[in-house]
Amino acid sequence: MADPPPLLLALDLTGTFAFGLNGALTAVRATHLDVVGVVTLGMMTALGGGVIRDVLIGAIPPATFVDWRYFSLALAGGLIAFLLSRRLDRLEMPITVLDAIGLSVFAVIGAAKAVDYGLGFGPAVLLGVVTAVGGGTIRDTMIGQVPTVLRSELYAIPALVAAVATVAAIYLDVYSLPVALAAAAACFVIRMVGVRFQLNAPRPPGHRFDR
Amino acid sequence: MADPPPLLLALDLTGTFAFGLNGALTAVRATHLDVVGVVTLGMMTALGGGVIRDVLIGAIPPATFVDWRYFSLALAGGLIAFLLSRRLDRLEMPITVLDAIGLSVFAVIGAAKAVDYGLGFGPAVLLGVVTAVGGGTIRDTMIGQVPTVLRSELYAIPALVAAVATVAAIYLDVYSLPVALAAAAACFVIRMVGVRFQLNAPRPPGHRFDR
Amino acid sequence: MADPPPLLLALDLTGTFAFGLNGALTAVRATHLDVVGVVTLGMMTALGGGVIRDVLIGAIPPATFVDWRYFSLALAGGLIAFLLSRRLDRLEMPITVLDAIGLSVFAVIGAAKAVDYGLGFGPAVLLGVVTAVGGGTIRDTMIGQVPTVLRSELYAIPALVAAVATVAAIYLDVYSLPVALAAAAACFVIRMVGVRFQLNAPRPPGHRFDR
Repeated sequence: MADPPPLLLALDLTGTFAFGLNGALTAVRATHLDVVGVVTLGMMTALGGGVIRDVLIGAIPPATFVDWRYFSLALAGGLIAFLLSRRLDRLEMPITVLDAIGLSVFAVIGAAKAVDYGLGFGPAVLLGVVTAVGGGTIRDTMIGQVPTVLRSELYAIPALVAAVATVAAIYLDVYSLPVALAAAAACFVIRMVGVRFQLNAPRPPGHRFDR
Repeated sequence: MADPPPLLLALDLTGTFAFGLNGALTAVRATHLDVVGVVTLGMMTALGGGVIRDVLIGAIPPATFVDWRYFSLALAGGLIAFLLSRRLDRLEMPITVLDAIGLSVFAVIGAAKAVDYGLGFGPAVLLGVVTAVGGGTIRDTMIGQVPTVLRSELYAIPALVAAVATVAAIYLDVYSLPVALAAAAACFVIRMVGVRFQLNAPRPPGHRFDR
Repeated sequence: MADPPPLLLALDLTGTFAFGLNGALTAVRATHLDVVGVVTLGMMTALGGGVIRDVLIGAIPPATFVDWRYFSLALAGGLIAFLLSRRLDRLEMPITVLDAIGLSVFAVIGAAKAVDYGLGFGPAVLLGVVTAVGGGTIRDTMIGQVPTVLRSELYAIPALVAAVATVAAIYLDVYSLPVALAAAAACFVIRMVGVRFQLNAPRPPGHRFDR
């Protein structure tokens, strides 16, 4: 696959590093892990979503296994999180911001790649969301937690918005770098608003959750 | 892939909808989820088994990503379960019946497709069972439960019977629509008998389980 | 894929059987399962790592689905564990030794196969480790435990050593049967030393774990 435009590539690489860092930190906080566990979960968070997408569209071997930059940044994020986990705890907000950048760019690039490989509207949107949230979901499942994406704060919804906007723009033949950045920006803003005001997506009607 | 015969296709689509509905309801009952979580788990239950099968036999992109009918019915099942979860609680038996139809048809169609793609007897049987139970297993794993298929009631055994019958019929060159329906019916009957009498597959000898 | 040399093949088949046996025994001990659950988890432990590797490098259908010997040995290991679980409890050490053989050979063969399919250094090493520990990780996740590989004893580290040695030898063009056996032996020795002295990989600095 040819590189995306430099700006999108830079954001994509930033997101990969942020996911590796954030994924490993989540793992350190949640359970007792050694260096292998922490770095593995960081790399899974950073690369997992893209790997699932690539397997499902037939882009084998997955892009992140071929392009050493993604692989190295994910590994670096995990290692740094392992070494500095105590200090990074104080940097929650910058890491959340980096994580939201990753979420946004992954959703846009993932959806666009799925269309490239011939998938229809619905599946391409789904794979955009999977690219964005798949890695974190694998991590949460492996450490025995119900995946965050399934239960709290606006996490999948902004990714869904970005993926729909991306696929719609491609179908309308108006997809371009500014459009991709606008879709990612919309995702980023919704996500940060959700974090700031602790918003959640609607719950099933009539069920009371007391905790 | 060409469509299967109309009757089998209708049952396959019915099963997809039932799995989406049932999968989402299971998720609502088991844990605290928002709309994204409920619909996601419904779709995973409905489409997960077939996706794993298609990835393993090399039918990429997976059939359910290409054929909008499966995708839409799985999505509809999840959304309906989300909106009506309180009322659907009273419809346990009809939903169990629909779920058993899905189990039966998925096992037959999954095993037949694996043979189509050149797999041997054992692997084709395994993939038939995976098609039938894979989606529910992913759902259970993600919400932190030991998958039902591993621990209770006759669930995998009837699927195994249907898959063995299907692959055997193909090997004996007597596979046809009536045979496929008979294999699915055998699975359906065993499953419903298991539900009615709460039967379980044998436990390891010598272990006492008191709960 | 042509068979590996007879000695390596024999060790690979031994490892498959041992993983099936050990994986099923772990499942029997950890949770309440019927025969389907126990055998399924045994087969997943034995075949899961290789299946993930083959999906990611595009070797479809996975080798263990095509070669009946792997499939049968994994199945046999799971069935024997189910039938004899009480007696096998007394054979912990022989089973641990067989498991370590599987770990060692899987890491070497997995890494070599990834290079064969054109993957770079880092990804090939990663896939060697995945081949060795992937099956057990899936099993642990499905029975609701944080995977052993992430949290205790030296398990992934020896596999990593063997995979790095294998890929390095291939890159230096000195890969041969003795080299493969030496890499596997190194993994085996480190693993057994870890078991004997209950060694663990380093934990994140500054965190205290009291249990």
